[in-house]
Amino acid sequence: MKKALNIVKVGGQVVEDRKSLDRLLEAFCSLEGCKALVVGGGRKATALAAELGIETKMIDGRRITDARMLDVVTMVYAGLVNKNIVAGLQARGIQALGLSGADLDSIRSDRRKASDIDYGYVGDPAKVNMEALKTLLENGITPVFCAITHDGNGQLLNTNADTVASALACALAGEYEVKLTFCFEKSGVLAAPEDEDSVIRSIDRESYARYIAQGTISGGMIPKLDNAFKALEAGVHEVTITKATALGPGEGTTICLNC
Amino acid sequence: MKKALNIVKVGGQVVEDRKSLDRLLEAFCSLEGCKALVVGGGRKATALAAELGIETKMIDGRRITDARMLDVVTMVYAGLVNKNIVAGLQARGIQALGLSGADLDSIRSDRRKASDIDYGYVGDPAKVNMEALKTLLENGITPVFCAITHDGNGQLLNTNADTVASALACALAGEYEVKLTFCFEKSGVLAAPEDEDSVIRSIDRESYARYIAQGTISGGMIPKLDNAFKALEAGVHEVTITKATALGPGEGTTICLNC
Repeated sequence: MKKALNIVKVGGQVVEDRKSLDRLLEAFCSLEGCKALVVGGGRKATALAAELGIETKMIDGRRITDARMLDVVTMVYAGLVNKNIVAGLQARGIQALGLSGADLDSIRSDRRKASDIDYGYVGDPAKVNMEALKTLLENGITPVFCAITHDGNGQLLNTNADTVASALACALAGEYEVKLTFCFEKSGVLAAPEDEDSVIRSIDRESYARYIAQGTISGGMIPKLDNAFKALEAGVHEVTITKATALGPGEGTTICLNC
Repeated sequence: MKKALNIVKVGGQVVEDRKSLDRLLEAFCSLEGCKALVVGGGRKATALAAELGIETKMIDGRRITDARMLDVVTMVYAGLVNKNIVAGLQARGIQALGLSGADLDSIRSDRRKASDIDYGYVGDPAKVNMEALKTLLENGITPVFCAITHDGNGQLLNTNADTVASALACALAGEYEVKLTFCFEKSGVLAAPEDEDSVIRSIDRESYARYIAQGTISGGMIPKLDNAFKALEAGVHEVTITKATALGPGEGTTICLNC
């Protein structure tokens, strides 16, 4: 039987507010066994960019990353957010290790080619250093990833945190029974955007297509769910979308190939 | 016989200029065997702080670190500088891993108590996780430290990079024959500040006291040399102060207890 591995991805919002961050860290610490955390940080980067007079341009929820914006996201994601979370986990007795994709060559990405849109210094994960990560996990170390990877030629690349979490889950699915959880500010995928009680409990391929056609699911939720399905197809055991403070079983929306 | 370990500390200046950084990385990569890099980044932090309207206050070369300045140095040291160096080393085939003191609980510090001066969120290394570092080194991993540590209770602390390098060297001196090199913008400790040809080839306790009394050595060089002597007393094999691009034998100033 494969060992269980919890991979939890949290969005930028949860790290902005000390209280919600503490609640997340408590919830994450209560997960038993091997685990890894992947942390975004979008709004903080946008705020810092604004302070520095750098305009944030987003297309379909993806950040256009020129050289100055790459510096901003590297500072916020790999520095400010990552190290505060690592320190918070260490204070709770977790042997945490913050990682960008460059560290231990853990995630190498291909820079996204410019077509209609030039995203700039943005990369899509191409290769996960599975052996290095397995060694960390087997030694009781909890990796904490930020949404920065590299191309192997010295160039850092901004990489969607959901995609990072999926790439890790898929790469490790051969060795572990991976439960992948995407946390964000809402209780799950909602049928009515403003109604926290309208959580869709499960979504499969068929209902997903229907929800998109109806416009129930749109915007930033689409890459999130696309990632979830890709992960399931690659052998990930379970994918859940939930609130950062509700990591327990039965919470949020479960995504499956055929529910 | 103990295995050799090179610990190289580079200052902020070298990481500001792409060319000098590349030369440093080449020089560092050419060092054989186990090695670790410790990187400061003061000027970049000062520049970012200024852009954000945060005033930099220094006393005896030490940065007063309030909460906002701590965020700035965490972003610059642990994020921007650290990850670009790690990516640069990976591109050169070095299995680099960026670390703050919080990562793997590698360096735990005591927050400096406010006396006449309140340095703010500044810490002095109290405990190095020698076992974790030994495991990394034995597995061919090259740690790249930034000048950020933690107190074990979730608080990050700004920590002088020279002190970080010394603390690491001292902690690892029991296991390794440690050569500790402090790099900065000049060719060594200079007898005449503006004359690069006036490198003092060796300094011991006696000549150090004389140089200070004469005013030949002053300012930021004093904590650097104090650290060097402490490291030698703690069993470090050799301490050198040199230019970042001159890491070879016979370069710079060698510090010894009794030359």
